[in-house]
Amino acid sequence: MDRSNSVSRREAHTTNGTKKTQEELLVQEEEQEVLSVERIFESKQVPSWQSQLTLRAFFVSLILGILFTFIVMKLNLTTGIIPSLNVSAGLLGFFFVKTWTKFLDKSGFLKQPFTRQENTVIQTCVVASSGIAFSGGFGSYLFGMSEVIAKQSTEANAADNVKNPSLGWMITFLFVVSFLGLFSVVPLRKIMIIDFKLIYPSGTATAHLINSFHTPQGAKLAKKQVKALGKFFTFSFLWGFFQWFFTGGDGCGFRSFPTFGLKAFENRFYFDFSATYVGVGMICPYLINVSLLVGGILSWGIMWPLIEDRKGHWYPADQSPSSLHGIQGYRVFIAIAMILGDGLYNFIKVLGRTLYGIYCQFREKKTGSVLPVGARASPAEASLSYDDQIRTELFLKDQIPTWVAIVGYVSIAIISTITLPHIFHQLNWYYIVVIYIFAPVLAFCNAYGCGLTDWSLASTYGKLAIFTIGAWAGASHGGVLAGLAACGVMMNIATTASDLTQDFKTGYMTLASPRSMFISQIIGTAMGCVISPCVFWLFYKAFHDLGVPGSEYPAPYALVYRNMSILGVEGFSALPKNCLTLCYIFFIGAIAINALRDALGKNKAKYIPLPMAMAIPFYLGSYFVIDMCLGSLILFIWTKINKAKADAFGPAVASGLICGDGIWTLPSSILALSGVNPPICMKFLSRKDNIRVDKFMKP
Amino acid sequence: MDRSNSVSRREAHTTNGTKKTQEELLVQEEEQEVLSVERIFESKQVPSWQSQLTLRAFFVSLILGILFTFIVMKLNLTTGIIPSLNVSAGLLGFFFVKTWTKFLDKSGFLKQPFTRQENTVIQTCVVASSGIAFSGGFGSYLFGMSEVIAKQSTEANAADNVKNPSLGWMITFLFVVSFLGLFSVVPLRKIMIIDFKLIYPSGTATAHLINSFHTPQGAKLAKKQVKALGKFFTFSFLWGFFQWFFTGGDGCGFRSFPTFGLKAFENRFYFDFSATYVGVGMICPYLINVSLLVGGILSWGIMWPLIEDRKGHWYPADQSPSSLHGIQGYRVFIAIAMILGDGLYNFIKVLGRTLYGIYCQFREKKTGSVLPVGARASPAEASLSYDDQIRTELFLKDQIPTWVAIVGYVSIAIISTITLPHIFHQLNWYYIVVIYIFAPVLAFCNAYGCGLTDWSLASTYGKLAIFTIGAWAGASHGGVLAGLAACGVMMNIATTASDLTQDFKTGYMTLASPRSMFISQIIGTAMGCVISPCVFWLFYKAFHDLGVPGSEYPAPYALVYRNMSILGVEGFSALPKNCLTLCYIFFIGAIAINALRDALGKNKAKYIPLPMAMAIPFYLGSYFVIDMCLGSLILFIWTKINKAKADAFGPAVASGLICGDGIWTLPSSILALSGVNPPICMKFLSRKDNIRVDKFMKP
Repeated sequence: MDRSNSVSRREAHTTNGTKKTQEELLVQEEEQEVLSVERIFESKQVPSWQSQLTLRAFFVSLILGILFTFIVMKLNLTTGIIPSLNVSAGLLGFFFVKTWTKFLDKSGFLKQPFTRQENTVIQTCVVASSGIAFSGGFGSYLFGMSEVIAKQSTEANAADNVKNPSLGWMITFLFVVSFLGLFSVVPLRKIMIIDFKLIYPSGTATAHLINSFHTPQGAKLAKKQVKALGKFFTFSFLWGFFQWFFTGGDGCGFRSFPTFGLKAFENRFYFDFSATYVGVGMICPYLINVSLLVGGILSWGIMWPLIEDRKGHWYPADQSPSSLHGIQGYRVFIAIAMILGDGLYNFIKVLGRTLYGIYCQFREKKTGSVLPVGARASPAEASLSYDDQIRTELFLKDQIPTWVAIVGYVSIAIISTITLPHIFHQLNWYYIVVIYIFAPVLAFCNAYGCGLTDWSLASTYGKLAIFTIGAWAGASHGGVLAGLAACGVMMNIATTASDLTQDFKTGYMTLASPRSMFISQIIGTAMGCVISPCVFWLFYKAFHDLGVPGSEYPAPYALVYRNMSILGVEGFSALPKNCLTLCYIFFIGAIAINALRDALGKNKAKYIPLPMAMAIPFYLGSYFVIDMCLGSLILFIWTKINKAKADAFGPAVASGLICGDGIWTLPSSILALSGVNPPICMKFLSRKDNIRVDKFMKP
Repeated sequence: MDRSNSVSRREAHTTNGTKKTQEELLVQEEEQEVLSVERIFESKQVPSWQSQLTLRAFFVSLILGILFTFIVMKLNLTTGIIPSLNVSAGLLGFFFVKTWTKFLDKSGFLKQPFTRQENTVIQTCVVASSGIAFSGGFGSYLFGMSEVIAKQSTEANAADNVKNPSLGWMITFLFVVSFLGLFSVVPLRKIMIIDFKLIYPSGTATAHLINSFHTPQGAKLAKKQVKALGKFFTFSFLWGFFQWFFTGGDGCGFRSFPTFGLKAFENRFYFDFSATYVGVGMICPYLINVSLLVGGILSWGIMWPLIEDRKGHWYPADQSPSSLHGIQGYRVFIAIAMILGDGLYNFIKVLGRTLYGIYCQFREKKTGSVLPVGARASPAEASLSYDDQIRTELFLKDQIPTWVAIVGYVSIAIISTITLPHIFHQLNWYYIVVIYIFAPVLAFCNAYGCGLTDWSLASTYGKLAIFTIGAWAGASHGGVLAGLAACGVMMNIATTASDLTQDFKTGYMTLASPRSMFISQIIGTAMGCVISPCVFWLFYKAFHDLGVPGSEYPAPYALVYRNMSILGVEGFSALPKNCLTLCYIFFIGAIAINALRDALGKNKAKYIPLPMAMAIPFYLGSYFVIDMCLGSLILFIWTKINKAKADAFGPAVASGLICGDGIWTLPSSILALSGVNPPICMKFLSRKDNIRVDKFMKP
């Protein structure tokens, strides 16, 4: 999940590009005359911030929040690749409220029309609530504390370093850490949005989308997109349902379909018929899909078979295939090495740009220059002074007093410092105080960096906490668990901070009040703090092999995070032979590839794979990569046949595929909980085995 | 296979409708100005009959003949439902020669341009050659003689009533019986085409198609259609190839996919992923698909389960499921009763209309009236006098002397009378003489009836021969085999006669000479007499369970025909309890439903199922019906979305699906012959069985 957030942001960036094209097609004509979005909306009154926060908006947000939490949770626990769901959230929010208002309008009960500000409130609330499913670490640090994951390594699996999930402490933990980020960036919003004019690609994209929905043509297109989404949602849901019938046993069903033969299946190359990942592949940029494929071929196609040939030499031949002292160790630690190498490079790069950006801002303020270096304001934006005027005016109208932010931050920090050691007794109160002193700086850094590059480093800050706090606590004092808990605190602060600033940008561009954004984010976060643990709990209770390698829900990053923490606390003693050498090579390789990408420039960099994406299949295998590449291929052919249509409907189709399959996990887990098992097993046997089985069945 | 020919003709009729719509779209504008097809072609010279018969035409015909023989053979041996392949034959013929001539034109070697007459020659030759695959009885009477089929009933399976297939006698048999029909109708062509102006819907449709191809717009559309056909051909071929990998054992692979659950699978309700039958369903009229489904539900959904409940009472409980004294007997004999009831009704109806038609013709000739009753000449046709003039002139230009026909018929009859008793010693020479005295009359009747109703009664005449000759020979003298052999003789004569007259009609409308039609038909028939037995031989050698119930190639009509012959010779002694009563009910029911259909008129009749189509799943189950209904559904939705496109490309897509899967049987049978077995078995187990198997595999 390491860069999933950044992956997600990147995609959002792509989505942005897509949306722009789509919007361009629509608004082109008007733009040529008006050249200003706000002129189109001139006739529409902006409601007060209180009336932007409607009950219906939060009701719809709750439903969508649950939907997206299921999807994000499923993705967390299968591969950890989470695409941007902003488009679906925007589309579905628009669809629900529009249907609602239309219905009320017809029955004469409509009191308040549906505005783009309300749409922004919904989008903010949904993203905040489903964001907790990611930053809550259910697929990474939090689940990494559990016994299931701890048992997979022989190190640090004493009771002191294990904490099994339980609904109570998970909800408490999330409540005490998730609001700090919000309060820490509130005072800085004017600096980042108005003064620095940071671009926030994702936030801008979402704002464009919402603005386009509320123009007449945009509404028409949105309706068609919703129809496409609905169609593929239904298909994907029914396909999930159909597949279920054939999974009556281990290794049964379409998930175990040896599409390319049994030999390839053993090396995890097969198409697993997952509508979700076909959809994810359609949303993700081609480069990510190609990187995944390259990583899969490099690892499962070349490296692991070669290492397995050394069985008995490099590692004991009698190790179980899931032991970290065997082949599994190479898989996990080489993946960690690449992730850390990539993370380190980008941390330094983004931090450097952030510091340089801030330096330039202040220098310019002194010299009186207008445009900041980092903001890259486009000529169009420069000419849209009317828009800027209106937007700045409304953005500054509803203030949030600084004392509210400070009082909020301090009081929550105090509550948190008292509560957290009760949840994790390995986490001393002074560790927490130290974290909370540095947190606002890191939160600002993350929000600023994200605005410049669309790259959230939340998980990198989390890893920083793993290594520092873990080492400080030490192995004998439950340092592994302390590291993971500290990671959670840090990640939550950094994620919510950058999310809120993104939303401020969206609000700025849709004339939604900062107050309503802030409150919506708080309500969404609160929802998420309850929904996410509950959904995770449903998965945890329904699927008993959660976190087991090779199962339906291997939760890959849980093991990765735990092993990072072990590494941080115990050093490299756990690694099998030659593994450390290989790790160094891949750590340096990841940095080198990143440097090469930056050196080549944007045009050529698109042919160089991303090390972070390459690392994911190292541990998991290529089955989901095949799905994603299929999605990519479909989109590619569609674009070749009809670019305009593919641009307009591709994201909707992909969202439909993801949402339908994602929501099917709800009934499927309920079926599992109530003990209803699928009736049929679709089994794949080699011809030789089949003859044996046939003889056994009909003697 | 009983009415498959008529089914095929019916479809051709539908195809006709389709093609007309399509052509209308294209030619509409011109027609409004010109109103005459021949005016469009006025500038193009009609080549002499010798130059219509080019070497390239026969080369292309040979290739297409082999292709279509594979397809027809596969259909024969799986369900016996054979759709009209005229459209594909026309399309592919056009495509091949057009590519050929274009290539030669570019290289400067083109001596003769591609004309519609040549296209007609190809179409005639291909249909004649692949027609033998049907009339040769490889899925019905001829294979019904074999030991595999004979073993399935306890009656009449002595050596005297069994003759296993062998390449030598099959080719000889076909050569001595297949040409008689041609010579018997040659002298009557002027009467039927020019004087009676019979419509021959299929022949007319094909002529329309060929004419449209050779107009500039038609050629453009044809090119697009060929592209669609090619795409789906490739898909269907690859899909067949992919499926192959998973069939490493009995009951393995997509063919055994329990789509609707294991219980429904036991009752043969499942989707078997056959691209062929999805394509067939797209070509067949909705009514046939619905009839099949009604028949499937009535038999396997209701009747058979009810009868199986009577196991031990109605029939012995210890019978094997494939014994005709058990449940299988009800399936086969009730299906036969329906087929015979339907056949009898239509025989009387068509014969009555034929006689009445002829009567009217002669009366009108005396009174001097121009338009015959049966010909139903449309107003458009009446006004197209210019077309008629040109066409009649050319049709009468190249004569075939009557003495050629008489000498040909008599000499082949003599050779045949001498040869046949050597092949089937049960068939005395005087039986053959009797058949050959009546044959010309029946051939004419069939050609005339087909011209009026597009309904070939060839298989009904065949059944007539089974019952008369079989009874004459008697059980003790190998009457069962004699009946089947006589059926073959009769069917071949009747089929080729009606086929040739259809082709004369096509030739008339495309200005192809009757001589070239006749010669093309003779060459095509000769090709078919060699190709069909060879293809059958390949199937016979490659798939060892050919003709076994429940296998991939059950050859349903082989058992049906054999049992008809047994019934004719031995009476009803073979039937299990209450089976005869049920047979009477369904025999009368089939007649009643047909009468009802005729009484209600065309508009309402389309809601009444066809008894013949209902009978097919009685024996086979509904798996192919599900495929066909899916095809129907796809076409239906396509038509709703875009009627023009569905009309223009539906038949091409369907042909692509059928041809691709059909031609895959060639490599698949070669693989089987060379002992290459598929590597994987995709098996479907109930959850309980799966637990047992898992325990067995990993103790």
